[in-house]
Amino acid sequence: MHRILVLHGPNLDVLGTREPELYGQVSLDEVNRRLVDLGRELECRIECLQSNHEGVLIDALHRARADADGVLLNPGGFTHDSVSLRDAAAAAQVPMVEVHLTNPHAREPFRQRSLTAGVAVGVVQGFGVDSYLLGLRALSGHLRGRQV
Amino acid sequence: MHRILVLHGPNLDVLGTREPELYGQVSLDEVNRRLVDLGRELECRIECLQSNHEGVLIDALHRARADADGVLLNPGGFTHDSVSLRDAAAAAQVPMVEVHLTNPHAREPFRQRSLTAGVAVGVVQGFGVDSYLLGLRALSGHLRGRQV
Amino acid sequence: MHRILVLHGPNLDVLGTREPELYGQVSLDEVNRRLVDLGRELECRIECLQSNHEGVLIDALHRARADADGVLLNPGGFTHDSVSLRDAAAAAQVPMVEVHLTNPHAREPFRQRSLTAGVAVGVVQGFGVDSYLLGLRALSGHLRGRQV
Amino acid sequence: MHRILVLHGPNLDVLGTREPELYGQVSLDEVNRRLVDLGRELECRIECLQSNHEGVLIDALHRARADADGVLLNPGGFTHDSVSLRDAAAAAQVPMVEVHLTNPHAREPFRQRSLTAGVAVGVVQGFGVDSYLLGLRALSGHLRGRQV
Amino acid sequence: MHRILVLHGPNLDVLGTREPELYGQVSLDEVNRRLVDLGRELECRIECLQSNHEGVLIDALHRARADADGVLLNPGGFTHDSVSLRDAAAAAQVPMVEVHLTNPHAREPFRQRSLTAGVAVGVVQGFGVDSYLLGLRALSGHLRGRQV
Amino acid sequence: MHRILVLHGPNLDVLGTREPELYGQVSLDEVNRRLVDLGRELECRIECLQSNHEGVLIDALHRARADADGVLLNPGGFTHDSVSLRDAAAAAQVPMVEVHLTNPHAREPFRQRSLTAGVAVGVVQGFGVDSYLLGLRALSGHLRGRQV
Amino acid sequence: MHRILVLHGPNLDVLGTREPELYGQVSLDEVNRRLVDLGRELECRIECLQSNHEGVLIDALHRARADADGVLLNPGGFTHDSVSLRDAAAAAQVPMVEVHLTNPHAREPFRQRSLTAGVAVGVVQGFGVDSYLLGLRALSGHLRGRQV
Amino acid sequence: MHRILVLHGPNLDVLGTREPELYGQVSLDEVNRRLVDLGRELECRIECLQSNHEGVLIDALHRARADADGVLLNPGGFTHDSVSLRDAAAAAQVPMVEVHLTNPHAREPFRQRSLTAGVAVGVVQGFGVDSYLLGLRALSGHLRGRQV
Amino acid sequence: MHRILVLHGPNLDVLGTREPELYGQVSLDEVNRRLVDLGRELECRIECLQSNHEGVLIDALHRARADADGVLLNPGGFTHDSVSLRDAAAAAQVPMVEVHLTNPHAREPFRQRSLTAGVAVGVVQGFGVDSYLLGLRALSGHLRGRQV
Amino acid sequence: MHRILVLHGPNLDVLGTREPELYGQVSLDEVNRRLVDLGRELECRIECLQSNHEGVLIDALHRARADADGVLLNPGGFTHDSVSLRDAAAAAQVPMVEVHLTNPHAREPFRQRSLTAGVAVGVVQGFGVDSYLLGLRALSGHLRGRQV
Amino acid sequence: MHRILVLHGPNLDVLGTREPELYGQVSLDEVNRRLVDLGRELECRIECLQSNHEGVLIDALHRARADADGVLLNPGGFTHDSVSLRDAAAAAQVPMVEVHLTNPHAREPFRQRSLTAGVAVGVVQGFGVDSYLLGLRALSGHLRGRQV
Amino acid sequence: MHRILVLHGPNLDVLGTREPELYGQVSLDEVNRRLVDLGRELECRIECLQSNHEGVLIDALHRARADADGVLLNPGGFTHDSVSLRDAAAAAQVPMVEVHLTNPHAREPFRQRSLTAGVAVGVVQGFGVDSYLLGLRALSGHLRGRQV
Repeated sequence: MHRILVLHGPNLDVLGTREPELYGQVSLDEVNRRLVDLGRELECRIECLQSNHEGVLIDALHRARADADGVLLNPGGFTHDSVSLRDAAAAAQVPMVEVHLTNPHAREPFRQRSLTAGVAVGVVQGFGVDSYLLGLRALSGHLRGRQV
Repeated sequence: MHRILVLHGPNLDVLGTREPELYGQVSLDEVNRRLVDLGRELECRIECLQSNHEGVLIDALHRARADADGVLLNPGGFTHDSVSLRDAAAAAQVPMVEVHLTNPHAREPFRQRSLTAGVAVGVVQGFGVDSYLLGLRALSGHLRGRQV
Repeated sequence: MHRILVLHGPNLDVLGTREPELYGQVSLDEVNRRLVDLGRELECRIECLQSNHEGVLIDALHRARADADGVLLNPGGFTHDSVSLRDAAAAAQVPMVEVHLTNPHAREPFRQRSLTAGVAVGVVQGFGVDSYLLGLRALSGHLRGRQV
Repeated sequence: MHRILVLHGPNLDVLGTREPELYGQVSLDEVNRRLVDLGRELECRIECLQSNHEGVLIDALHRARADADGVLLNPGGFTHDSVSLRDAAAAAQVPMVEVHLTNPHAREPFRQRSLTAGVAVGVVQGFGVDSYLLGLRALSGHLRGRQV
Repeated sequence: MHRILVLHGPNLDVLGTREPELYGQVSLDEVNRRLVDLGRELECRIECLQSNHEGVLIDALHRARADADGVLLNPGGFTHDSVSLRDAAAAAQVPMVEVHLTNPHAREPFRQRSLTAGVAVGVVQGFGVDSYLLGLRALSGHLRGRQV
Repeated sequence: MHRILVLHGPNLDVLGTREPELYGQVSLDEVNRRLVDLGRELECRIECLQSNHEGVLIDALHRARADADGVLLNPGGFTHDSVSLRDAAAAAQVPMVEVHLTNPHAREPFRQRSLTAGVAVGVVQGFGVDSYLLGLRALSGHLRGRQV
Repeated sequence: MHRILVLHGPNLDVLGTREPELYGQVSLDEVNRRLVDLGRELECRIECLQSNHEGVLIDALHRARADADGVLLNPGGFTHDSVSLRDAAAAAQVPMVEVHLTNPHAREPFRQRSLTAGVAVGVVQGFGVDSYLLGLRALSGHLRGRQV
Repeated sequence: MHRILVLHGPNLDVLGTREPELYGQVSLDEVNRRLVDLGRELECRIECLQSNHEGVLIDALHRARADADGVLLNPGGFTHDSVSLRDAAAAAQVPMVEVHLTNPHAREPFRQRSLTAGVAVGVVQGFGVDSYLLGLRALSGHLRGRQV
Repeated sequence: MHRILVLHGPNLDVLGTREPELYGQVSLDEVNRRLVDLGRELECRIECLQSNHEGVLIDALHRARADADGVLLNPGGFTHDSVSLRDAAAAAQVPMVEVHLTNPHAREPFRQRSLTAGVAVGVVQGFGVDSYLLGLRALSGHLRGRQV
Repeated sequence: MHRILVLHGPNLDVLGTREPELYGQVSLDEVNRRLVDLGRELECRIECLQSNHEGVLIDALHRARADADGVLLNPGGFTHDSVSLRDAAAAAQVPMVEVHLTNPHAREPFRQRSLTAGVAVGVVQGFGVDSYLLGLRALSGHLRGRQV
Repeated sequence: MHRILVLHGPNLDVLGTREPELYGQVSLDEVNRRLVDLGRELECRIECLQSNHEGVLIDALHRARADADGVLLNPGGFTHDSVSLRDAAAAAQVPMVEVHLTNPHAREPFRQRSLTAGVAVGVVQGFGVDSYLLGLRALSGHLRGRQV
Repeated sequence: MHRILVLHGPNLDVLGTREPELYGQVSLDEVNRRLVDLGRELECRIECLQSNHEGVLIDALHRARADADGVLLNPGGFTHDSVSLRDAAAAAQVPMVEVHLTNPHAREPFRQRSLTAGVAVGVVQGFGVDSYLLGLRALSGHLRGRQV
C-alpha cells in the first residue's frame, strides 16, 4: 500500500466553475473522489490537499518526506515562477509527478518556462481530469517498478 | 448599487510610512475612507482588504465571483511575478481594474513586465492615492456603461 | 484656471470608424467636447490638437512650455517607438499624463514597450473615451494638489 | 473597375539615382507609369502618392477607406519601425499588399523585423520594379477572386 | 474500436541498447507489444511505425487523416526543431498525444523548446516505456470521452 | 524557353484538404496545372516535384544546376529551420524565387525567421495559389530582364 | 545593545535533513543557537523567525521597522523571484544583510538573478552555517561603524 | 569652398531652454552663428536647417546630393529609431558626420543603439556645442584630405 | 586495424562544383580516395557514405555501433539544427570526430551554434579537404592512445 | 598555521583616494595591516599582493598551489570579464574566497555577471574593508572545519 | 598650460602597418608628433604612452590623477571588454575623452558595446588620425570652458 | 623551411598539473618538444612562447609579422573575451591556426563564444596535446599548399 499525497496548487479550489471551457466542469471534490477510487484499484492510499498559499504547499511537501511514498503535484501558476516550491519538492526526496489540466505549450509564452518540472520524475499535461488519473498511474507504476 | 472589492497587495499596509517620498504620506485607512466616500457618490458599496499573502488575495478574488460586481486591485510586487494571481483574477470573471501608486515605467527594469494587467479592463498608475480614486471611477463607469 | 493641452497622436482622427470593436464608436470631436465639458467642471481651459505627424506633436509640446500648465497626451503608435516624442515631452517641462483607449498589456508584444510613459506623471489605459476623462481628472488633481 | 492607392514611403522619390546598384535605375515616375499601364490591363484605376512624411502616408491610408478598394504599399524604412503606419493600414480596412524593391532577408539585421507586413494580405519583395507590378497583380487578383 | 497510429521518431529503433541508463533496456518491439496488449484492453487497434526520416513520419501523419482515429507520437529530436512535423500533425486533424521516454525539463537547454507539443492534445513525459502506455490511455480516453 | 523547376516542400501534398481555411481548397495537381499553363504563356517549361523529405529536395536542387534555369521553391516548414536546404539553394547557383501560400508575418513567432529567403532573389507570400503564379512571373521576368 | 531580526525563508525549517550534501547537517535550531551565542559576544539581541510563507516574512519585515536595528535575511528561493519581499526589505528602512548557505553562482542559471540583494547592505554566500555568523558580524559591524 | 549642410533634428529648436543642465544654455541661433564663423575660417559655406519632422530632414538629405559637399547631422532622437533617416543619409552619397550634444553611452539603454551612425564617416558626441564645431572640422578635414 | 566510418552530410555530394571559392575544387571521390590512402598509412579501414537525408545518416550512425571503431562526421548544415543527429551520434557510443571544410566562426551568425560538436571527441574546421585528413589522424590517435 | 594568499585586483592600489564615497577612505596598506592582525588571531600567515595586471594575478594563483592553503581574492573588474582568471583560480586547487568592497547587485548591469564566483567556496560583498576581514574569517573557518 | 596624458591602447604600436586600408598609413610616432604640435597651439603639454598591457594603462590612469589635467584615451579593443579600464578611468577623476580611428558602428556587432565611453566626457570616432586631434581640441576646450 | 611561432595563452604554464583529468598530464615542455620534433619532419622551425599576460601575447603577434610565416595559437581563456588579441592576430597578417586542448562545445556556456577563431584559418579542438600537433600539420599544409 503506497501513501500518495495529492497537492493541488492555486486556483484549483474553483475548478468546475473557473473558465470551464478551458479547465472543464468537474469539481475538485469529484477529482479527489476519482483519485481515491483509482488509488484503491492501484493499492494507494490517497490524501488530498489544496491551497492557494505557496507556504502551505511547501509545508505539505516537507511533511511528505515522512508521511508519503510519492507526491502528485499540480503546481498551478507556481509552475512558472516559484523557486521555493521547486526547492521544497526537491527537499521532500520522495518521487514527485507533475500534472496539468491544460497543455501549457498551447498557451501564453510565460507558461513555457517550468521550474518545478525539473525535479519531477515526469509530467502529464493537457488531459483535463485525466491528467490526474494518468499521473497517479504513472506514480504508482514508478513506485512499484512500472507497467501502468 | 455596485459591489466593489478593493484588494491591496503586499506592503500596502505600511502605506504612509513606507518610503513616503515615493509612495506618499497618506495611510491605507485614509485611502479606504476616501474610496468609501467616493463610492457613496458613485453608488458603489466598497469592501476593502489588504494582505501580504498571495494566497489571501487569491482566496478573495475567488469569493469576488459571487460577492462583487467588480474588483479594484493594486497587486503591488505581485504585478510582476505572480502567474497565480493573474489566473485568479481571470477566474473571478468580474471586471477588474488595476491601480498603482507609482509609475512603473519610470522605475527599475524588473517592474516593466506586468502579468496581472493582461487580464484587467484597464490600468491607472502614477497618481498616488488618486490612482485608486480614478480606478474606482473607471470601474464604476465600466459597470454602468461609462461617462466617468 | 489651468490651461491643458490635449494632444491626440496618429490614427486618432479616424476614431469612431477605426476598428470600432477595439476603439469604440465615439468620434474625436465628441471626445474633445466631453473633455471641454469636464474641463469646465474642473476649472481647466482645454485646447485640443490631433496630428498624424510626429513633428507637429513635437512642435505642440514645445509651445506647451509657455502656453499650457499641463499636457494630456495619447501618443498612439508613437508610444512604442518615438524617442523624439519622449524627448519633447521631457523638454516641455510641464506635467504630462499619458492615456490610451485600449490596454496595451492585453495586445501584441511590440505594444509592451513604452518610451513616452517614462517621462509621464502617470498613465491611464484601457477605458476607451473614459481614459481621457480620467486622465484629465488626474492631471487637474496633480496641478492643484490632488483629490480627483 | 477597382480603385488602387499606391503609396511610396520614404526615400522612394530619389529612386533611380539612389544607390542604383541596390535599387535599380528606373525613376519613380516610370514606376508609376508602368503601374498605370498594368492597371489599365487589370481594370484598376491607379492613384500614386509618395512621401517622406509618415504623417502624410497615414493621412492617405485614412482617406483610402472611402476612396480606394485596395492599397499597394512600399513602406520603405517605416516597415521596420513604425507602429503608427501599421495601425493606419489596419484602420483603413481595405486589403493592403506590401512590396519591397530589395529582399530584406539578404540585408542588415534591423531589416528582418516587419511591423507593417503583419496587417498585409501578402508581401512581394526582392524583384525591383517588378515587385510593384507583381504586387498590383496580387492585389487585383485578391479583389476579384484570384487568378493573377 | 479506435484505430491508433503509433509513430516513433528518430533513434527509437535502437531503444534498449541506446544509453540504457537514460532510455531503459526495453526494446522497441517490446514497447509495441505492450501497446498492442493495452490497446486490446482499451478497444484500440494499434499500428506502429518507426523512422529516422522526418519525411516518412510526415507521410504517415498524412495517411493518418484517413486511416486513424488518433495518433500517439514520440517525435524524438524533432520535438525541438521540426516545424514541418508540427505542420503535419496539425494537418492530420485527428487528435495527437505526444510522449517522451525522458523528462526534457531535466535535460539540456535546447530540449526545453517544443514545437510539436503546441498542436498536441497533451503530453506525457519522463516515465520510460510507461509514457507510451499512459499516452495510449490518455488518447483512448480523449476519443471516448474520458475516464482513463 | 526557360526551364523552371518547381519544388514543393513538406505538407504541400495534402494541399486542398489541409486546414483549408488557412491554405485554401485548391489541390497541388491543380496548382501545378496552372503553373504549366502560365509557363506556356511565359515561354517556360515547368517541371514540378513535391516531397516531404528534405533530402529529396536537396537532391533536386543539386540537379537543378544542370537541368534548370531557375527554381521556384516553397520550402514549407523548412523555411524556418533548415540550414541544409539553404545551402543547397545557394549551391544550385541558378536564380531561386521563394513562395508561401500564407503570410508568415501574420502567424506564430517561430515562422518569423527565414533561412532560405536569404539566398533567394525575392519572396512572394500570402496570396494562396497566386503566390506561385506571381512567383513564376517574377522568376521568368528575372531570367529575361524584367517587366512581368 | 542592537536588536537583530533573523529571518529564515522557505525550506530552511528542514535544514539538516534537506539534501545535507548541499545544505549541511546542522539544524535550524542549532543555527539560531549559534547566532544567539555570537550575538551575546557582539552585544546584539537576536530574534529568529522562519516561515515558508512570503506574507509572514513581509509582515515581519514591516515590524522590523519599529522593533529591530537590523535584519539578517536568508530569502531562500524568494531571492530570485519575489519583488514583494524586496519591496518589504526596502520599506523596513533598517540595514539588511543577505545570507545564503550555498553559492548561487555555482548552481542553476535561474539562481543567478537576485532581486533582494539589490536593497541589501551586502551579501554573504557559500559558507553554510558560517554565512549566518559572518552575516551577523557584518551587520553588527555596519551598525556600530565597522571592524568585524 | 565646400558647401556644408547642417541638419538639426527634433527638439533642437528649443536648445538653450530645454533641460539646460543637460543640453547647455546656448541657443540654436548661436550654434549656427558659431558654425558659420568657423566655416569661414575653414572655407566652408554653411547652410543650416532644423526640423522636428523626419520627412523634412529626409527631403533635405535628398537635396544635399546636388547642393552640398558634406552633411553635418545631429539626428536627435531619430538616431535610435529611424531606419528611413539612415536610408536617406546613405542615399545622399555625400560624406556625413554625426554629432550629439550629450554622450549617449552615459544615458538610458534605449540610447545605446544607433542606426544613423552606421552610415556616417564618424561621430562626435558629448561636448555640447563643441560637438558641432569639432564635427565641422572633422567634415572639412575629410573633404580636403585631413589635418583638422 | 581500426574500422572508420566516414559520414558526409548534406550538399557534400556536389563538392568541387559547389561555390568552389568557398569549398574548394576537390571532388568528394577524391576526398574519399585521400582518406583511404591515409587510412592505409594509419592502419584504418575506411568506409565512406554521403547522404542529403538526415535519416540515412542516423541509420548509418546506428550501424556504426556494431560495425565501426570510430566515426568521422561532417554534418554539414545539420551541425546547427539537428537534435536527432546529435542524439544518434551519442547513441552510437563509438568515438566521433567532427570536421568542417570551412571555419563557421568566420561565417553567418546561424552557423555559430553547434549541436553535434557537443557529443564529439573534438572538432577540426577550416582547412578544406585537410580538415578530413587531420580529423582522421585525430580519430586514429584517439583510438590508439595518441601521438598523431 | 594556515598560509593565506590575499590577492587584490585592478584599481585597488588607489583605495582610499578612488571615489571614496563608493569605496571608502581606508588605504590598501591599512587593509593589509588589518588582515595581518586578524590573521594572527586566526592563526593564519597572510601574504598580500596587488596588481593591475591580469597576468600577474594568474601567475600568483599558480604559485598558490604550492605556497598557500587558501586564497582571498578581490578580482575587481576582472570578476565580470576574465575567463582566464577564473581558469587560474580553478587550476590553483586550493580553496578560494571572493570578496568585494561594494555590492555589485546594487550597481550597473554589467556588474551582475560573475565569472570568478563560480569557482569560489563563497563570496562576501558590500561591507567595504569588512568584506576582506569577513572573507578571511570565512576562509579560515573553511580550512579548519568551521565556526567563524 | 594643461597637462594632457595621451594613452594608446593595444595594437596601436603597429599603426601604419596594421591593416592600413582600415587604420591608415600614419605611424604612432607621427600621431604623437601631431598631437604635440597641436598641443603647443592649444597650450597643452602632451605626454604619450602606448601599451598592449591593460595593467600598464591602468597604472598610467592612476598616475594621471596627480600628473595630468585631462586624459585622451584610445582604449582599442579594451573599449568593448574591460571593466577594469573603465573603473580606472573613473578613478582617475580627471576629464577623459575617448577616441577611435575607425567608426565602431560600421563594424562587427561585438564592437557596438562600449564600457569605457560611459565614463568619458565625450567620444570622437571614425576620422583616423584626426580623431586624436579633434579629441585633443575637445579636451582642451572642456578644460578651459569651451570654444574649440 | 617555414618559421612557426607557437603561442600558449594563460594557464598553459601549469599544464600537466592543472586539472589533469581535463587537460592531461603532459607538461608544456613536453608539448613544445613534440612540436619541435614534428616541425623537423614538416620542415618547420618552431619557436615557442607562453604567457599569462595578454600584452605579451599581443607583442609577440606583432613581432610575428616580420619573424614568422605562421602562428599556432592556443588563446586559452582569451578565446572568449579578448577583442584585443583578436585584433592583434588580424594585424599580424600571417596565417594563424587556433588550437584547444579540450572541446569548448562540451563545456560551460561562456566558452561557446569565440572571438579569436573568427580571424583564424581554422581551429582544432578537443584532442589534448594532439590538438597542437594536428594544428601544426594544418598550418604547415596551409603554408605549402596542403596535403597534411
